[in-house]
Amino acid sequence: MTLEISDKARALLEQPVLVNLATVRPDGAPQVNPMWFKFDGELIWFTHTNYRQKFKNIAHEEPRVSISMIDPDNPYGYIEVRGVVERVEDDPEATMYQLLSEWYDGTPVTPPDAKDRVKIGVRPTKVVGQ
Amino acid sequence: MTLEISDKARALLEQPVLVNLATVRPDGAPQVNPMWFKFDGELIWFTHTNYRQKFKNIAHEEPRVSISMIDPDNPYGYIEVRGVVERVEDDPEATMYQLLSEWYDGTPVTPPDAKDRVKIGVRPTKVVGQ
Repeated sequence: MTLEISDKARALLEQPVLVNLATVRPDGAPQVNPMWFKFDGELIWFTHTNYRQKFKNIAHEEPRVSISMIDPDNPYGYIEVRGVVERVEDDPEATMYQLLSEWYDGTPVTPPDAKDRVKIGVRPTKVVGQ
Repeated sequence: MTLEISDKARALLEQPVLVNLATVRPDGAPQVNPMWFKFDGELIWFTHTNYRQKFKNIAHEEPRVSISMIDPDNPYGYIEVRGVVERVEDDPEATMYQLLSEWYDGTPVTPPDAKDRVKIGVRPTKVVGQ
């Protein structure tokens, strides 16, 4: 399946904007937090730790997620990207955290919880508002 | 029940920041969009229309929601407010939209879809990250 992605959406997907990732908790309630991300043209990647609730939500219960991306140049321009977690990989060297910290802040950082890091790849299935 | 709200969280709740509201769709997948809000000291109010998906999510299926609020002065300072939809009221004069548009943009606006407007009051049940 090839997903239609507009130029507007692609521009947002290629910028280091803080996005909000919504997941569903095992009890069925939603959870949402700001996250760094990197789109590789196919999957949207996040860094996370393997002991936090959001990881438990997507790894064990509900792989569907939704991502809100607000255009930093136009707060009323936004897209919602729905998707499914397709890859969850141990990342004990925190390579995804390093990549993201450099992309967002200019300096690669190795976090103190590197050994517990995972990288999470979400396949977009629908882009709303593009 | 009185909810503990820190000074940091209260400061965010009293500013016109664009927040992200996560809901759960009838099929169990999460949805998330940026929203205006106004906290009256007890409930967090939103304006919405009565025909859109998010309204259907919370009015008919899953009243639990989650709200991500990013501190505009510190992108890594954020809180997640979990809550339950307690009030849903018809708002055919779009009074909540007018109040919010004035608070966010300085001018009260009556939207073209005023007759379909509802106002939604969420009772916070937990504040994470405060």
